[in-house]
Amino acid sequence: MPLDLNTDVVTLTAALVDIASESLDEQQIADDVEAALSTASHLKIEREGHTIVARTELGRAERVVIAGHLDTVPANGNFPSRLEGEILHGLGSCDMKGGVAVALLLAAHVTEPVRDVTYVFYDGEEIASEFNGLGKLARTRPDLLAGDLAILMEPTDAGIEAGCQGTMRADIRTTGERAHSARSWMGSNAIHALSPVLDRLMTYVPREVDIDGLTYREGLNAVGISGGVAGNVVPDEAIVTVNFRFAPDRTEDDAHRHLQEVFEGFGLTLTDSAPGAMPGLSQPSTAAFAATVGGEVKPKFGWTDVAQFTVLGIPAINYGPGDPMFAHKADEHVPIEQLRRVHSTMAAWLSA
Amino acid sequence: MPLDLNTDVVTLTAALVDIASESLDEQQIADDVEAALSTASHLKIEREGHTIVARTELGRAERVVIAGHLDTVPANGNFPSRLEGEILHGLGSCDMKGGVAVALLLAAHVTEPVRDVTYVFYDGEEIASEFNGLGKLARTRPDLLAGDLAILMEPTDAGIEAGCQGTMRADIRTTGERAHSARSWMGSNAIHALSPVLDRLMTYVPREVDIDGLTYREGLNAVGISGGVAGNVVPDEAIVTVNFRFAPDRTEDDAHRHLQEVFEGFGLTLTDSAPGAMPGLSQPSTAAFAATVGGEVKPKFGWTDVAQFTVLGIPAINYGPGDPMFAHKADEHVPIEQLRRVHSTMAAWLSA
Repeated sequence: MPLDLNTDVVTLTAALVDIASESLDEQQIADDVEAALSTASHLKIEREGHTIVARTELGRAERVVIAGHLDTVPANGNFPSRLEGEILHGLGSCDMKGGVAVALLLAAHVTEPVRDVTYVFYDGEEIASEFNGLGKLARTRPDLLAGDLAILMEPTDAGIEAGCQGTMRADIRTTGERAHSARSWMGSNAIHALSPVLDRLMTYVPREVDIDGLTYREGLNAVGISGGVAGNVVPDEAIVTVNFRFAPDRTEDDAHRHLQEVFEGFGLTLTDSAPGAMPGLSQPSTAAFAATVGGEVKPKFGWTDVAQFTVLGIPAINYGPGDPMFAHKADEHVPIEQLRRVHSTMAAWLSA
Repeated sequence: MPLDLNTDVVTLTAALVDIASESLDEQQIADDVEAALSTASHLKIEREGHTIVARTELGRAERVVIAGHLDTVPANGNFPSRLEGEILHGLGSCDMKGGVAVALLLAAHVTEPVRDVTYVFYDGEEIASEFNGLGKLARTRPDLLAGDLAILMEPTDAGIEAGCQGTMRADIRTTGERAHSARSWMGSNAIHALSPVLDRLMTYVPREVDIDGLTYREGLNAVGISGGVAGNVVPDEAIVTVNFRFAPDRTEDDAHRHLQEVFEGFGLTLTDSAPGAMPGLSQPSTAAFAATVGGEVKPKFGWTDVAQFTVLGIPAINYGPGDPMFAHKADEHVPIEQLRRVHSTMAAWLSA
């Protein structure tokens, strides 16, 4: 049954939830989205794999990118959708078919937006980053993502969360010399040698930085520690894994240099890194959007796909229906009031 | 074929090696040992499970306990025995059928020792301590182990290693509060909280203590460390496992109190403990034995079964043929010169 875009946002969200689309199985939902949008003559449609890009080309002064992923985590007794009172339940209702429904309705019905819009519906967000359709597009077709502002419609409880912090993981390794613990003076204990590393972590004072009026609060934490050979052996290796969450005014290179400074004198190996995203609230389009939405704009601390826009130099914010605490949960749900509010807010902002 | 005790120590060691006796499979060797000793009218034989005790009862002023275990670790391509030049190869040749052969010959042929002797041939030494025949005897028939000095004939390269250090393991656990690492200020990092624990370990100055002219050198080492929930979580628990090797002038209670003092303010859980053994070199019998053996008497750092005698208040030393570095190795072996020297030294000491 084709997707009907001549309906309300609650019905459309339910219809999207009812199309199973676990990661790597997005063929059906991508086909349905492409078919539903292809009848809109004001949109130029392009498809890359299971990622659908629909653009208005009205020659407006500004262009905004509105993005949402089509895939979900595996079902957990929460398929298909179920409407109970003011709440729509079901897999993906919160993360993030509610946001996708809003974007699809805007794409179909706001035919003459005051800002040009690029809608991006992508696959592979809930699994390893190599499958991420938005990431693929950023690498292979950055022209399709060009714009002045990006809005990622992930659940934010219908409030604006601007930018996001970067994240970096590194291993700090100490070495020693193995010996029988009964003759420990013959060896050198690598776990003991971690003492100054933990001391630096314990006394580390994280930076707080103001960007566009938002306070980003960094953090440097040990997230793992390991060492030991056997109960009677002085260990010759120990490792502490740290996770550095850094404000978006630092590049990944800056963050790496900072870790090298903090742990100077120790071997540090970078294992994982993703950039932050600038909030871009000083830009007119973003400021106007924030004014339309109202309420407090918050900095985003957790890393999200908005950072995919960073490499393209596009400020990005998170804004969508649903409480993110219920993402990936069996009792995933979205309040229909938020679906309606987010839809009307976005429609108003695109129209005025 | 019954064990022939009217032979030399090399032939007898080879014969013992050729009786397979992996731990928990000591029936055959225990039967053979019991049968071989039962013809000696100067010995009183008792058997508990697969542990054979043979005693002289001459009313001497002193009694010495001479002990050796009958079991071996699993074979590793080194069964049966193989004599090559001056070296006897094979499973258990070093650990410790050479020592058992010496003890059996002494038991059979030194019919009127100047010191009463209790020979103990026991099972279950190479596996979990619950199976240890000597330990069972110490708990259930301590009367059979009574004496003024114990000699455990484990391999010591034919030199005296006196007493042994105790060993104790404990976990030191820190707790915190879990949080997403992107909002780490919401939590409390248990790994960071280990910093003072590692600091105390790193700056710990181990005691050196003189006992009967021997210097025992203690050691306190982290032998394991672990913590961490996931790469994006501030961990709420971390554990460091320490191993304390303590000189035999400390009881286990003393050692435990010491650890509690060192790690005051932290939760400490004792997981494993075994007492040390006093060297007893100031006793006339031990001093005489040391003089007979000659060479340097060394303190024993690694824990051995001599400590089984500690609970009975009996000083104990390690003395036997074979280099302990080859115990449990595929190329396990014993020099026949050591077999002969240890045998003649022991025979002389029991006879004069």
